[in-house]
Amino acid sequence: MFESAELGHTLDRAAYAEAEPALRQALLAAQYALGEQRRFSVVILASGIDGAGRREAVNLLNAWMDPRQIESHGMGEPSDEEREQPPMWRFWRRLPAKGKTGIFLGTWYTAPLLERAMNGLDAHAFHEQIEDIARFERMLTDEGVLVIKLWFHLSKARQKQRLKKLEEDPQLRWRVTERDWQHFNRYDDFHAASEQFVRITSTVNAPWHIIDGSDVRYRSITMGGIVLSALQMRLDQEAERLAATQKALAKKPAKAAPVAPILGLRDNLHILSALDLRQGLSKKDYDQQLEALQGRLNILTRHPSFNRISVVMLFEGNDAAGKSGAIRRVTGAIDARYYHIVPIVAPTDEERAHPYLWRFWRQLPRRGRFAIFDRSWYGRVLVERIEGFCRTEDWSRAYGEINDFEDQMVRHHTVVLKFWLAISKDEQLTRFKQREATEFKQYKITDEDWRNRDRWDDYVHAVCDMVERTSTAHAPWTLVEANDKYFACVKVLTTLCERIEAELKRLTAQDKGKKRGKKSIG
Amino acid sequence: MFESAELGHTLDRAAYAEAEPALRQALLAAQYALGEQRRFSVVILASGIDGAGRREAVNLLNAWMDPRQIESHGMGEPSDEEREQPPMWRFWRRLPAKGKTGIFLGTWYTAPLLERAMNGLDAHAFHEQIEDIARFERMLTDEGVLVIKLWFHLSKARQKQRLKKLEEDPQLRWRVTERDWQHFNRYDDFHAASEQFVRITSTVNAPWHIIDGSDVRYRSITMGGIVLSALQMRLDQEAERLAATQKALAKKPAKAAPVAPILGLRDNLHILSALDLRQGLSKKDYDQQLEALQGRLNILTRHPSFNRISVVMLFEGNDAAGKSGAIRRVTGAIDARYYHIVPIVAPTDEERAHPYLWRFWRQLPRRGRFAIFDRSWYGRVLVERIEGFCRTEDWSRAYGEINDFEDQMVRHHTVVLKFWLAISKDEQLTRFKQREATEFKQYKITDEDWRNRDRWDDYVHAVCDMVERTSTAHAPWTLVEANDKYFACVKVLTTLCERIEAELKRLTAQDKGKKRGKKSIG
Repeated sequence: MFESAELGHTLDRAAYAEAEPALRQALLAAQYALGEQRRFSVVILASGIDGAGRREAVNLLNAWMDPRQIESHGMGEPSDEEREQPPMWRFWRRLPAKGKTGIFLGTWYTAPLLERAMNGLDAHAFHEQIEDIARFERMLTDEGVLVIKLWFHLSKARQKQRLKKLEEDPQLRWRVTERDWQHFNRYDDFHAASEQFVRITSTVNAPWHIIDGSDVRYRSITMGGIVLSALQMRLDQEAERLAATQKALAKKPAKAAPVAPILGLRDNLHILSALDLRQGLSKKDYDQQLEALQGRLNILTRHPSFNRISVVMLFEGNDAAGKSGAIRRVTGAIDARYYHIVPIVAPTDEERAHPYLWRFWRQLPRRGRFAIFDRSWYGRVLVERIEGFCRTEDWSRAYGEINDFEDQMVRHHTVVLKFWLAISKDEQLTRFKQREATEFKQYKITDEDWRNRDRWDDYVHAVCDMVERTSTAHAPWTLVEANDKYFACVKVLTTLCERIEAELKRLTAQDKGKKRGKKSIG
Repeated sequence: MFESAELGHTLDRAAYAEAEPALRQALLAAQYALGEQRRFSVVILASGIDGAGRREAVNLLNAWMDPRQIESHGMGEPSDEEREQPPMWRFWRRLPAKGKTGIFLGTWYTAPLLERAMNGLDAHAFHEQIEDIARFERMLTDEGVLVIKLWFHLSKARQKQRLKKLEEDPQLRWRVTERDWQHFNRYDDFHAASEQFVRITSTVNAPWHIIDGSDVRYRSITMGGIVLSALQMRLDQEAERLAATQKALAKKPAKAAPVAPILGLRDNLHILSALDLRQGLSKKDYDQQLEALQGRLNILTRHPSFNRISVVMLFEGNDAAGKSGAIRRVTGAIDARYYHIVPIVAPTDEERAHPYLWRFWRQLPRRGRFAIFDRSWYGRVLVERIEGFCRTEDWSRAYGEINDFEDQMVRHHTVVLKFWLAISKDEQLTRFKQREATEFKQYKITDEDWRNRDRWDDYVHAVCDMVERTSTAHAPWTLVEANDKYFACVKVLTTLCERIEAELKRLTAQDKGKKRGKKSIG
């Protein structure tokens, strides 16, 4: 894999002097076109062997191109805000907007690679992490991000030579740290682990480019050439796509987007029709249970371990199913400082310029906090699918991306609760009419609600697909029979309490296990 | 000041039951109108004596209103990212967008009040901090934020009684901490300090409302009433303003905004005409000095104390004066991980929904980092003033707000550098023509540049006013003679190095002083 990069490529001064100005100018022109088009963003990963020139290369790119449109991220130690979030959060928050470039010196490969080479992470776990990364990068490219992955390489002999030479130079000595030598002593382990992940993550859309780092002129021109050709190719593609779209628009008059095809259900027996919507509660039982549940929830938020977890709740459901009422019963039990409700409305322009899930990542709660989403990332496989707001390939891949997203939260001790509030078609009609009749509730009923109602069967199919594909063991869907509001609220609160209790119990058990482990060692 | 709030106001159950539903409904309606109008945001400060019901009041507001449009902020200990920024940064980042409400339980008063009452901050310093706050709040209200300040009060006797009662209840005991008793022991100090700041900061636009916290029903209805009437009054004002604007638009045909009046200069002798633009450097001298300066700068960034400061640079200047070239000479000396260039373009919709300076606050650098602004917050007193993009009262108050903003950075060990790159009118013409003639540079010259050129004299006046009013000892303007690009770059880099060196020296001296202080104590 790294053989070619160990051949000792060089470029002489004259050849460099000839190539550099044209390359530079072309890069700048491409970058300018990128900013003009604003159709995609660019993520450059600068990885590789210590001393192979990653840092210098990044500085050079900044010098060659317009640094105002580039953000370079060293990614040192995570801050405490970052530590309170799933590990990928710090990368998500730094993803560039369309038209911009982000260069990462520390990348999502850094942690697994160090763990594997230095701390003996086992092969299986390492492989799993690399697969996670591969899926993350596929999501990026699917979302239109141009991902350019550079690996600056040095052979073992050359790395040693490089480090020694730096150490001898009093001006540059500071750049060689003890850690560099520690890493060098594990060269073979790094080499083996790198080879493995480079192989797995060299995909068609985001391949690795291995660059021989031994000669500064060669590696600079090579790197520039790689970045340039990736940029140019993509710019051309986008220009073509744009032209094709405009041509198509010019031909046909604007028409409503076609409805995305919905898979047929074999019979009328499905998870929604199987719900017994007649279930109800008397006002008296409700009052009693609500008070008990709210008390239970409030006490849970004061559990000594509660500030080690966080809670993400999301509410989806038929229009008028009572989402906001259910949310108010939950928040009624929690101190207002500890929750944050995120009503999902049209994305802002900053959100639109980033991958789909970015707007949800930025709302994740800190430790000991709740984030409550009123509608959620499932919009993609519900309304966007049904109304044709996104392409079939987009909502189709969303299921997997969402599972990955939630999986990261759960692994980071976030309790993820997903509620679908279901009412019958008749009940909805009654509620719509009530809303129209009550002056104070009129703003809650719009033409859109009536339009959605016409799509009732499409929603049934989309919900079945959604639950089928995204109800996982760690982040299950809870279907809530909501014809009776009392019953629905009690079910939501009960589920919430139980899931938090389970997570706290799991933590306690884990702590005990650790203590036991320590004892038996000591 | 607090006399009325110690009278022991109460409200009986029947009166509460009568008032509550109507209040609640009116609050919800007002909140809905707020979201519809999206003309202003609401900031509610919930301050007061421990045990007087602040927290309960906030929870109640969340229960009464739509909590999806409210964010409640407990403001506990700052995170490490927050500690790396000026103290107000954590409030700026939480300011609500137009149409939304932010409730602060910990407020900008908390730190000075605690410092004064518990740690004996001297009266003068306390007063200064309160004046800073008063100016900050005036900025908020000038920017259209509705600021509602609630002070929940309890007499000394009642506070003692309240704390004791809570302690006796096994269900509520957890709410009384040792800190509460410590604070209680300083009741008189808190009382005196509170009285002082309530007096100073009770302004026409953001008055304090003192609420007797002894009776839960009375304080709830009172608080609700205050919030409601503030909201309604403002909503009506905005509706009137909107109607007036529409009427005015309907009458007159749309016309270019009138040029903001520019103060006349007595003669042609001013800071810009006094510059000797003939100064220059030979290529040889330049190369030599540039290398030395870039080396000096690079070594400075590796100074052991450099990660205790941060650097904010901003570049303004005539079109084609060479801002981006100068920026590149600076960044050429710094590792790309440590700087971040912020080109100021049109604000995003999230930025537009916040006070003017919000978009700059969010870009401030962390410790050990540079933020380089290509154009800046001075746009308000330059292009926006000249083109009439904002009202006279807006750009007029900007000078003071900017001074406050920069002052906060400087006090937080940020080196603030402000460069005005000046070229002569003839030199500009030459450069414009060059740009038009060079295919590769054509994108750098637009119609706007030619239009700005017609406004040359207006810019001269605006720049003179700007420097006059915002060149302070701690954040001075550096006027750069930029007809010769070599000379300009060297001046920028020299200034930068000197200012960083001065700040590092100041830090070292301060450390020594502290050590000496410790010694003489020990």
